[in-house]
Amino acid sequence: MKKYSLGLDFGTNSCRALIVDLSGGNEVASSVFKYPSGNDGVLTSTMDPLIARQMPQDYVDGLEHVIKQSLEIASGKGGFNPSEVVSIGVDATSSSIMPVSEAMTPLCLLPEFKNNLNAMVWLWKDHSSTEESEKITALAKEYRPEYLQKTGGAYSAEWFWSKILHCLNVDPEVFRHAFSFIEIADYLPAVLTGVNDVRKVKRCISAAGHKAIYNRQWGGLPDEKFLDLIHPDLALLRQRLYEKAYMSVEPAGFLSEHWALRLGLPKDVVVSVGSVDAHAGAIGAGIEPGRLVKIIGTSTCDMMIWPGDKEVNYLPGISGVVPDSIVPGYYGIEAGQAAVGDILLWFVKELTPLSYGKSIQDKFNNLTAEASQLQPGETGLLALDWNNGNRSVLMDPMLGGLLIGQSLYSRAHEVYRALIEATAFGAQIIINRLKENGLEFQEIIACGGLAINNPLLMQIYADVTGKTIHLAKSEQTGALGAAILGAVAAGKERGGFRDISEAQKKLTGIERSYAPIADNSLTYNQLYLLYRQLHDSFGDAKWQGSLSEVMKALIRIREDKRKN
Amino acid sequence: MKKYSLGLDFGTNSCRALIVDLSGGNEVASSVFKYPSGNDGVLTSTMDPLIARQMPQDYVDGLEHVIKQSLEIASGKGGFNPSEVVSIGVDATSSSIMPVSEAMTPLCLLPEFKNNLNAMVWLWKDHSSTEESEKITALAKEYRPEYLQKTGGAYSAEWFWSKILHCLNVDPEVFRHAFSFIEIADYLPAVLTGVNDVRKVKRCISAAGHKAIYNRQWGGLPDEKFLDLIHPDLALLRQRLYEKAYMSVEPAGFLSEHWALRLGLPKDVVVSVGSVDAHAGAIGAGIEPGRLVKIIGTSTCDMMIWPGDKEVNYLPGISGVVPDSIVPGYYGIEAGQAAVGDILLWFVKELTPLSYGKSIQDKFNNLTAEASQLQPGETGLLALDWNNGNRSVLMDPMLGGLLIGQSLYSRAHEVYRALIEATAFGAQIIINRLKENGLEFQEIIACGGLAINNPLLMQIYADVTGKTIHLAKSEQTGALGAAILGAVAAGKERGGFRDISEAQKKLTGIERSYAPIADNSLTYNQLYLLYRQLHDSFGDAKWQGSLSEVMKALIRIREDKRKN
Repeated sequence: MKKYSLGLDFGTNSCRALIVDLSGGNEVASSVFKYPSGNDGVLTSTMDPLIARQMPQDYVDGLEHVIKQSLEIASGKGGFNPSEVVSIGVDATSSSIMPVSEAMTPLCLLPEFKNNLNAMVWLWKDHSSTEESEKITALAKEYRPEYLQKTGGAYSAEWFWSKILHCLNVDPEVFRHAFSFIEIADYLPAVLTGVNDVRKVKRCISAAGHKAIYNRQWGGLPDEKFLDLIHPDLALLRQRLYEKAYMSVEPAGFLSEHWALRLGLPKDVVVSVGSVDAHAGAIGAGIEPGRLVKIIGTSTCDMMIWPGDKEVNYLPGISGVVPDSIVPGYYGIEAGQAAVGDILLWFVKELTPLSYGKSIQDKFNNLTAEASQLQPGETGLLALDWNNGNRSVLMDPMLGGLLIGQSLYSRAHEVYRALIEATAFGAQIIINRLKENGLEFQEIIACGGLAINNPLLMQIYADVTGKTIHLAKSEQTGALGAAILGAVAAGKERGGFRDISEAQKKLTGIERSYAPIADNSLTYNQLYLLYRQLHDSFGDAKWQGSLSEVMKALIRIREDKRKN
Repeated sequence: MKKYSLGLDFGTNSCRALIVDLSGGNEVASSVFKYPSGNDGVLTSTMDPLIARQMPQDYVDGLEHVIKQSLEIASGKGGFNPSEVVSIGVDATSSSIMPVSEAMTPLCLLPEFKNNLNAMVWLWKDHSSTEESEKITALAKEYRPEYLQKTGGAYSAEWFWSKILHCLNVDPEVFRHAFSFIEIADYLPAVLTGVNDVRKVKRCISAAGHKAIYNRQWGGLPDEKFLDLIHPDLALLRQRLYEKAYMSVEPAGFLSEHWALRLGLPKDVVVSVGSVDAHAGAIGAGIEPGRLVKIIGTSTCDMMIWPGDKEVNYLPGISGVVPDSIVPGYYGIEAGQAAVGDILLWFVKELTPLSYGKSIQDKFNNLTAEASQLQPGETGLLALDWNNGNRSVLMDPMLGGLLIGQSLYSRAHEVYRALIEATAFGAQIIINRLKENGLEFQEIIACGGLAINNPLLMQIYADVTGKTIHLAKSEQTGALGAAILGAVAAGKERGGFRDISEAQKKLTGIERSYAPIADNSLTYNQLYLLYRQLHDSFGDAKWQGSLSEVMKALIRIREDKRKN
């Protein structure tokens, strides 16, 4: 009898389920659900454009929909029976947190907080908590420098404590009524396993370590004294959070009776502890020592694993270094670019003329086709990929884009190519920072929408990095990774796997590879030096003759004007 | 009986005639002729994209067409008789030169040089002579620094000697057969007055002083020894050029019998010495001490006059300081921006999506309307206006455009506004350079297509400069200025004027004025400081932490790649 694992991947605007045949990786069925609330699932406020919230019910509705539909599709194909599902794994965006009651009720479901944005899910890309992140960073620099050594040197406005502190500052009622706060990646496995006491939820190291300064080295979450320095109420909250976080390969529990019945699945299905979506994606892409995984979509996430017994120094600008966060026994190392596909989409929507086509897809196709005809350097253009700030290695949201070298003859597809190249140079900055700190790798595996759909981008990345880039075999590495985590949590005796590596050998692979073209790499080496000059001058205040105040001043003036 | 003057204005792609009633400035008729050859009158070469040439016959055909047609239109209106025309003034683009025989035949009309681009008119914007200009600049720096003090510190690739030297280098046959070289602005009055010996042509100080290093201070053109250093053949050519240049208010002569007959005009029509188009435009706009005139079109030309008895120091980066070149008795001072309207047109054509309209005019209208709704600083964007290099004050063609501060939400009309602002900041750099050298003025008068058609641009210029900007009354200030020069050359007794000032009081005026808005100026003061930082960092190699090599390197790499 075959065994199957069901991977659930909760993204920003939609979620999906994937049913994987554990005997050989065949992805037998999948289903997608778009969150119905707000704008593509995101609720915003005209009062504050930095706010991005979500309805928790969208997640639960989505969970039910995609599981049922994928089971139906698989059953319809024949040769599959829901009783053969042994495990469910769950991943979700991280830094997407919400206030809940002691009994796990999301606060926004209580009548008194209905329609209150602060009682909903605070989506990862909610950027309203900048001041709070600066306060936390400043205090940590002074009192707990070791905390920042695991986060690249700064604590982000997107992360757990920044958001909770902002909630406390702007809506003390919500904060006071929240028994606890929970990552959506931890909430969903708890729902599936029927946990109704938030203290009993098994939170994942994957999110806790990378976003909430959780580390076994100092006994879990930041200590009470430090939290008290930030705000006394945070110190009190700490007791209602969690003492211990779990690896994503550990079982969260069995599917609850309620959900087993509702979904038509056996009760002994093992549900694994949640995972950050990128970490699941890295697993589904085949992450292993010596391989950098890049998830290239609207933004990028760059991940490595590094043997847990080797020393990993402080990696300035690399946002996370956490033991056991991706693969047990290894440090999970995470960096990223704040915008890649988003920059291209912005350019196609806002600055591409009709001559490249009418629809967004036509424009993408024609821009890509024409840009592919160009040699590196032929545009005379160079860009900085900071339209959404810079995550790694500058960790600075107060930056903007830059385009240089325009003539009176520059064409849209030349700008488009320069923007792709800028993201490749941004990727190279991260690679060099890893290398400078002794973290070498031989191969790059890419996954995500852009990696699949844009061969020009892949070739440019190969040429710029000088390394072969492999495209992961699965188009749904997140859901596949979640399915793998579930199957490892289920264990060998239930038809799952002993460990991630064993599962990857069976279920992951490479679709095709892009080798660097030596001539192109030579030109890109020259251009990278120029990119580096701009990067350092505009991004680093310590640089001689630094222009690092220019972008910040422009943003400050803009925000001032928009307030009036 | 009324008296009329006919102004002829020869632009890059077309020429026009304007018949002006000298009693009160009424512009009774005008006519335009588009040069028929090549692309909008310009012949280019796929071998060298920097080449831009013209057919001299286009000018002569245009001259006949526009005079005849404007006379016809004026006559048709009644109350006008061609016999009442007392004068013709002529202006043309400068640095547009051609090789001619001793008898004034353009070399390209000789059978052996038919279709030879080097035997045609070398249009001002022909940029093939960069190496030659660098050689001349270097030699002048060493041996004749006084020459460069009148040209802002460098000798341009567009100018007289650079082009002739390039001709000598690339096509010695043409050079050897050329008895002389002549500016089109000098050629056309000579044609009208029937001069058939090139040595007898009255060349204008307007072009000679600003483009050919002609100055009475050193006895006319550069001396033979210096020319010999550049190339011995140039020293020999000097004898076949001219000893003395004339003011544009001086008569070149009377209309030749041939042309009087052909055009239906009296034989005693006075034709004035030619003029640079921008200088004629300044006169038609009402230039006088204390007033800066800005001609704002595809590029800009900024002009002042300064009493000839006051000392004018070396003005670094200001391309011309020449006595009597614009108005007798005054230094003519000229600076300019290499691209203004051209940058906006480029943006509208290449980077503006359909949502702003289908036609270029619709896009311009909608971009302008939406950009007008924004406050200064609200875009968060800042640009450098160097898509065509920088004329004043950097005098450096090896520069490119720059746009900074893009977010994922930046819109095309925001970029459009930032580009207009960039040209305004560029204008302010010139104003400050003049001011630093004691050349103060109280008012700005603007003319040219953009000044007439783009009130948003005019308001931004007022806000950025903090000065009231007046729009000149005439929409054809070049042709009007030429008509004034003709009327002054004809003199009072023939129904003309004693001097330019007397003519301007009668014939020029202000259409409307744009006063700076104090709040906007405050914001623009902040943004100008940021612009200045970028300007100096990318434009000035002496600046600490200078990025001045970045744009040059991009252009070098681009040109390398395009050659392959």
